[in-house]
Amino acid sequence: MSSPLILFDPHPRTPEMVYDQPTADALAAMGRVVTHFGSRAPASLVDEVLPEVSVIVGQTAMPVDRLGRAPNLRAIINVKGNWEPNIAYAEAQAMGVYVLSAAPAMAPAVAEACVGFAIALARRTLAADRAFRDGTEAYGIAGNRDSYSLFGAEIGLVGFGNLGRSLVPLLQPFRPRIRVYDPWVSPGYLALHGAESATLDQVLTGSRFLFVLAGVTTENEGFLDRARLSQIPADASVVLASRAEVADFDALLELGEAGRFRLAVDVFPEEPVPADAPMRGLKNVLFSSHRAGGMWDSYARIREMMLDDIGQILAGHPPLRLQRAEPRQAAAMRSR
Amino acid sequence: MSSPLILFDPHPRTPEMVYDQPTADALAAMGRVVTHFGSRAPASLVDEVLPEVSVIVGQTAMPVDRLGRAPNLRAIINVKGNWEPNIAYAEAQAMGVYVLSAAPAMAPAVAEACVGFAIALARRTLAADRAFRDGTEAYGIAGNRDSYSLFGAEIGLVGFGNLGRSLVPLLQPFRPRIRVYDPWVSPGYLALHGAESATLDQVLTGSRFLFVLAGVTTENEGFLDRARLSQIPADASVVLASRAEVADFDALLELGEAGRFRLAVDVFPEEPVPADAPMRGLKNVLFSSHRAGGMWDSYARIREMMLDDIGQILAGHPPLRLQRAEPRQAAAMRSR
Amino acid sequence: MSSPLILFDPHPRTPEMVYDQPTADALAAMGRVVTHFGSRAPASLVDEVLPEVSVIVGQTAMPVDRLGRAPNLRAIINVKGNWEPNIAYAEAQAMGVYVLSAAPAMAPAVAEACVGFAIALARRTLAADRAFRDGTEAYGIAGNRDSYSLFGAEIGLVGFGNLGRSLVPLLQPFRPRIRVYDPWVSPGYLALHGAESATLDQVLTGSRFLFVLAGVTTENEGFLDRARLSQIPADASVVLASRAEVADFDALLELGEAGRFRLAVDVFPEEPVPADAPMRGLKNVLFSSHRAGGMWDSYARIREMMLDDIGQILAGHPPLRLQRAEPRQAAAMRSR
Amino acid sequence: MSSPLILFDPHPRTPEMVYDQPTADALAAMGRVVTHFGSRAPASLVDEVLPEVSVIVGQTAMPVDRLGRAPNLRAIINVKGNWEPNIAYAEAQAMGVYVLSAAPAMAPAVAEACVGFAIALARRTLAADRAFRDGTEAYGIAGNRDSYSLFGAEIGLVGFGNLGRSLVPLLQPFRPRIRVYDPWVSPGYLALHGAESATLDQVLTGSRFLFVLAGVTTENEGFLDRARLSQIPADASVVLASRAEVADFDALLELGEAGRFRLAVDVFPEEPVPADAPMRGLKNVLFSSHRAGGMWDSYARIREMMLDDIGQILAGHPPLRLQRAEPRQAAAMRSR
Repeated sequence: MSSPLILFDPHPRTPEMVYDQPTADALAAMGRVVTHFGSRAPASLVDEVLPEVSVIVGQTAMPVDRLGRAPNLRAIINVKGNWEPNIAYAEAQAMGVYVLSAAPAMAPAVAEACVGFAIALARRTLAADRAFRDGTEAYGIAGNRDSYSLFGAEIGLVGFGNLGRSLVPLLQPFRPRIRVYDPWVSPGYLALHGAESATLDQVLTGSRFLFVLAGVTTENEGFLDRARLSQIPADASVVLASRAEVADFDALLELGEAGRFRLAVDVFPEEPVPADAPMRGLKNVLFSSHRAGGMWDSYARIREMMLDDIGQILAGHPPLRLQRAEPRQAAAMRSR
Repeated sequence: MSSPLILFDPHPRTPEMVYDQPTADALAAMGRVVTHFGSRAPASLVDEVLPEVSVIVGQTAMPVDRLGRAPNLRAIINVKGNWEPNIAYAEAQAMGVYVLSAAPAMAPAVAEACVGFAIALARRTLAADRAFRDGTEAYGIAGNRDSYSLFGAEIGLVGFGNLGRSLVPLLQPFRPRIRVYDPWVSPGYLALHGAESATLDQVLTGSRFLFVLAGVTTENEGFLDRARLSQIPADASVVLASRAEVADFDALLELGEAGRFRLAVDVFPEEPVPADAPMRGLKNVLFSSHRAGGMWDSYARIREMMLDDIGQILAGHPPLRLQRAEPRQAAAMRSR
Repeated sequence: MSSPLILFDPHPRTPEMVYDQPTADALAAMGRVVTHFGSRAPASLVDEVLPEVSVIVGQTAMPVDRLGRAPNLRAIINVKGNWEPNIAYAEAQAMGVYVLSAAPAMAPAVAEACVGFAIALARRTLAADRAFRDGTEAYGIAGNRDSYSLFGAEIGLVGFGNLGRSLVPLLQPFRPRIRVYDPWVSPGYLALHGAESATLDQVLTGSRFLFVLAGVTTENEGFLDRARLSQIPADASVVLASRAEVADFDALLELGEAGRFRLAVDVFPEEPVPADAPMRGLKNVLFSSHRAGGMWDSYARIREMMLDDIGQILAGHPPLRLQRAEPRQAAAMRSR
Repeated sequence: MSSPLILFDPHPRTPEMVYDQPTADALAAMGRVVTHFGSRAPASLVDEVLPEVSVIVGQTAMPVDRLGRAPNLRAIINVKGNWEPNIAYAEAQAMGVYVLSAAPAMAPAVAEACVGFAIALARRTLAADRAFRDGTEAYGIAGNRDSYSLFGAEIGLVGFGNLGRSLVPLLQPFRPRIRVYDPWVSPGYLALHGAESATLDQVLTGSRFLFVLAGVTTENEGFLDRARLSQIPADASVVLASRAEVADFDALLELGEAGRFRLAVDVFPEEPVPADAPMRGLKNVLFSSHRAGGMWDSYARIREMMLDDIGQILAGHPPLRLQRAEPRQAAAMRSR
């Protein structure tokens, strides 16, 4: 029996990100690897491997007809971390093909960034640094008039997927109260993860720290509208770390700039942000250019999880590290 | 039997910090309280209360002769958090008087600030915010070329007292390796707290994150000299959060500004820093004006710990929350 | 639109176990419930509900043809906790029907029992109790000549499914080293759960405590044969808590009785054990009659998880608490 | 300067317990060691070493006059784990001599035993084992009619010293509610350790599991009298693991035997228990002959803590592992 065939078609991921030498060596030890970088693999290449391929890594389009021509296919692994609309999710599931995403690999880095943003906002780190350079700094409690802390804080999460699950353990040592609004998860599940289920009203009106971690679906786009955002307590610290589309972004920036609450944003409705976007002139918002998740540590984690699960699958065992597509949910998520 | 007398002489702590209404009420329920704010209590007042006083809160000078005139004295509680040289530590211990400090109350806030500084340095939070305003930001991995993470990191602590004990639990969820240099604590004690004992060389040369948390004693002043600081790995993140005097401060700033390592400093050799200090013009150092510990949350913690332990002591039980003076160590610490 | 139909056919589970009043009320609030207790639901009843049923709770046979007649079916929930061979797993998955098991609900109770057995064996609890009644007890260290402890111990797990995942957190406060042999899970997955991957040889020869937690498949029946069991270190504590068939049961009892290692067994090749089985006369083995998992607390947990996930599924969200069938694995597991 | 002198006089501890070869070697590397085993060191030996001795290990009587003849003395380390009345505690403190006890070294083993007893009682481990031998066992839920679990349980602790602090972390993974009655410790201190402060009534009437961990003082002897014991809920599991004198022992046994609650006892008013003590005939009580703490693992811990702290003290640093005497409390504790 010949060794299993792996199609490695990870564009826009680069070899540096997902196919460094140790990874290439590890994959070569598991099967025959066909790679294509720099663009999506051309149809001719895909057609050629379909009859034999066992694992596809990348965002290769896999509609019904291609699935039908891939009798040995066991897994499709998206290393970009989202659910692309170019896969026939239900049919793949029907065929027993695992459709997997590396989204969980990004979550620790995003969670770390969230903690960093939260402390920076609550402790006024940037303003204090600026004041020191200006010679207007105050020492000790005089410089901390409006500082507050994560210890024992009321914390709200909007959305509880990979990001929430990674964030909660980082917050636990501060012994906070963590409430979550997520209509997709049950109270019992949240309790197991150390969080309380709450309504959106409760989370918005009762949180000193608010982390917006919800993905955007066809149904929740813009659900944090101006009225909702106005429920946030005065001077709370708000971190937007998932998708800009879940909020009325203009209202969010306006309220943050006006000092209604403290605000850090890592994601934008349009990226790159246009050079002349007025938000570049804002004084009170902490900006990060979609840097929370996509760091080298995250790619190392993707490589590790991918190798781990390809090993599992080729040995006939279920994958354990990457996230499985829920056909219904995968279809509802809006990719960009 | 008359109720115990408590002298409350906390200057420079203010009523707002350590004697808010609930605290005053709680103390009044435990004994007769004599207060003096705005300056050290005058000798006449101290002399008047000595024959009866059970607990002194503050930095009242308590040399041998005053101790001898205080037959009921059970505790001296320094709410400033250091060890003042104006107390006869050995004689107080000999008399069975607890000498206590609120230093542990400040440690959680400092530890939180350390985590915030570390993430800000490693993730280049300030530079990325500045780049966004300048229109030079890069997105995703392109904006993270030199970002790194606490997850799985090699972390070094110089000094392991209250600050170290508060910091380690906040770092644990990142599953780092934590090594500590502290000649005053044993390897077995560190192991119990989830850290490894190491030499100064090991900590300086092997840490991606370095937290300087040592107090300054008559012996260790300036021990992090230029040669020592030059051992730190290129591009490490260094946080100075205890006392500026433990390092050659000029060398530290120079190396930080030159980009040899990333640097955040919260403490300075002279505070306030002179208006014309050249360090105000540095571009690459993150400055904080002694703001890591002294925030309102810390004063709430002081009040709680103080009330808790006064209750213990007046009930005839040992204090459990505040830190006890070690006469030998208290004498060695350099107060400012 | 009419409310969803739930078929509740949980035999041999009784109403007391899985359908107490609060559960009945909760289910009634979610849909129309058709129940059958005391035997498997008759074919006529099943046929009647198939056209409408949304959720089946129980071990109702669901071969391909029945699946085909159940266009609204979203989930089959086995509240017995195993994978019955009477379900067409692959076809159910192909139709997008969740096939779920309550196995995780039993795991905490089993894990607790394992800790109890381990301490009882290592500390010689039963022998010491007997000695006291006999008047032959010895005090302190004299009575502890052969006692040992979980603290810092070398612990081995054979199998890492629901039981292993529940057991490891209970062992962690003892700061042990935990090694796992499980060919179905990857080293990376084990590391995330605080355990090390190891070979069977390593686990058998290097463990002071050995927990046998593997399920029995068509491939691993009897894999802990006499030669394997003879690798276990002298005087180790061995707990058999999953399925008797994974071991050569006679050899296991013989070695336990001979004092080669200490032994607790909760499962047997034939249950009930025949009245005249020679093992009833053994002196040195701790026996438990399949009591580790099936306690009232576990049924409460089943009810909670079942209600939680039925709520999720009827709301169009994925289940989060119960275990999903892996078609390939479900087929390989030998049910009894 | 000559190396420090250590007097090692640990009777009734034996060399095997506290002076094995690695310990002897480690001590020899720290100073000159004078040892005496098999009895208390004779006065002549003590008199001889007093002028030079730096550290005394053991229960050597140290009244005021001996203290006065020991100008270099820095520490007295009791390796038996209690506070003997033969030491002038206040005067030792006045001289700056650390008086230390190895009590914390025993606590982990006692805590482990407590967990083992609790599970054995709640899960009916011994009765089930007996039933199996008798051929009267029942399987699964039928054999678990009266079993219950630590998961989510209401747990009460009477006393919160070394034992309580060691027990709580072992219980935490079961996510219980832990309430503590201890008049010597404050609510704030308990909260830091994950427990709630409660009245004795609350702890006695509200606990499914009750751990009696209080030491006996001149004031609390027999405070758990028959009336108090009668407050315990029917069928609760009660573990007596500290000192028999805190309870009306006869009433305790009587209620345990009668099945009012489940009972395990590790300590007795008189040890050894007289051969003809009627309690030997009881059927329903789990007996352990003062075996909870005194196991080899505990002596290894004593040696480690002792070496650790002698190293600290001889280096001029405060001890960190052993427990310090509180003069007032040491005097109140009743030693046996």
